[in-house]
Amino acid sequence: MTLRIALRPAPLLLRFILPRPSLLLHQLPTRRAGHGPGQRVIHYMGHQAGATQPPTPHKTIHFCSQCAGPVDLKFVSSEDRWRHICSACSHVHYLNPRNVVGCIVEHEDQVLLCRRGIQPQLGKWTVPAGYMELQESTAEGAARETLEEAGAAVEIVAPYVHFDIPGIGQAYLLFRARLAPPFTFAAQAPESLETRLFPLEDIPWDELAFSAVSLALRYYVEDRRSQSWRMHHGVIRKQAGAGPNDPGSFKLTDYMGLPLGAERIQTQA
Amino acid sequence: MTLRIALRPAPLLLRFILPRPSLLLHQLPTRRAGHGPGQRVIHYMGHQAGATQPPTPHKTIHFCSQCAGPVDLKFVSSEDRWRHICSACSHVHYLNPRNVVGCIVEHEDQVLLCRRGIQPQLGKWTVPAGYMELQESTAEGAARETLEEAGAAVEIVAPYVHFDIPGIGQAYLLFRARLAPPFTFAAQAPESLETRLFPLEDIPWDELAFSAVSLALRYYVEDRRSQSWRMHHGVIRKQAGAGPNDPGSFKLTDYMGLPLGAERIQTQA
Repeated sequence: MTLRIALRPAPLLLRFILPRPSLLLHQLPTRRAGHGPGQRVIHYMGHQAGATQPPTPHKTIHFCSQCAGPVDLKFVSSEDRWRHICSACSHVHYLNPRNVVGCIVEHEDQVLLCRRGIQPQLGKWTVPAGYMELQESTAEGAARETLEEAGAAVEIVAPYVHFDIPGIGQAYLLFRARLAPPFTFAAQAPESLETRLFPLEDIPWDELAFSAVSLALRYYVEDRRSQSWRMHHGVIRKQAGAGPNDPGSFKLTDYMGLPLGAERIQTQA
Repeated sequence: MTLRIALRPAPLLLRFILPRPSLLLHQLPTRRAGHGPGQRVIHYMGHQAGATQPPTPHKTIHFCSQCAGPVDLKFVSSEDRWRHICSACSHVHYLNPRNVVGCIVEHEDQVLLCRRGIQPQLGKWTVPAGYMELQESTAEGAARETLEEAGAAVEIVAPYVHFDIPGIGQAYLLFRARLAPPFTFAAQAPESLETRLFPLEDIPWDELAFSAVSLALRYYVEDRRSQSWRMHHGVIRKQAGAGPNDPGSFKLTDYMGLPLGAERIQTQA
């Protein structure tokens, strides 16, 4: 894989606006995706599947779901990839990334955050989000998680952030959303110690649970303050063994900020 | 779930441009996502997980991957959802949607399509796409599939279409991409009977393999012809038991076309 993209430091405007210098530990790339000749695009010229060593599986499969036979990790040369294969019935057990879906919920120029009541990251703040389930769409899953974790019904406005985190087999899709009538939320929920609306200047940056949420909220603040929305896409590369949001333990690569059209941010009445 | 959005017929321009009336069997919703007050957003007011009956599983789990014990489908009231649970060790076996990633590859105003050499939909045309693997990003997966199925190295331009297909547990993410130097592709590949560049007016609409690809290519044609790109998001609802692209067997709901900014489509030299 060849990447021609260089990360750039945060723009001066952002450096000026953000309340704490420590926020810039993970500087946000600000390149905008190009559509015309001469503009930069991401070059993926190929792929090496790691033939020389088996991957660290994100989930360990010991026995076959079909016949209960013992499952081995074997290299499949035709696929150039390691697979979990039953040594009795030869069934191949595929493992694929999982989608994390959630909402950045706006209300009266504030955003709705939940303080986690379960592990991992018990006591840290996040946007309502969780694993997408079968038989629902990403937006339905995002709205469901918001109802479960914040007790809030929402209107989905638009997909906003898509981040891959290959190191942990996750793909994040966060939507912009608004509190829906009657504009209420639960102060507590089974998985949340506390739910609150935060003005942008009070977002608890040093107490956020997950790298993807930290980055998404930073772009959200940047977009609101520059008065123009983008659709954000990128890849979060984590240091092996790092925690979910350790300072300095991850970086955003392959970033694209797709500038959205003429519409300007409207402040809710 | 309450949806306030009504599907609208294809605009006159599109009706005029599209070469065959049969293409309009699945009319494309054309609403653009709204960001300001008074504009429409999608209202997800809640979610019913289907407590009264177990879901039809997309993958059947008979035995536990951890202990080889028998697995049952049980209703978990705290989650309001049916789960596969080992009756011996109580391990919960989660099933989640899988991501299908691929590329709409442009070259000299044409798009690269592959005629499938494997089931399902053997002999039908598609864009290069397949299941996202662990340890890769969506864009890397899309580029890998393009290399595998079309023998083509590509430059990823931008995410372009995100479609959920809840009925089959898939979420599609297709990128716009360009052939990369040396601008070659394989006439055949292990999974493709044939690979060809198609001018837009020659896209084999009646021989496309998958509903998501049909819809994505129609939006692609619409965007190119209207000279403005959008990021497309929606949910493909399939009739139970329908094939992958049966005429009249699916519809697109919850559609949003996010208009991208000032950039205009540039024709490649």
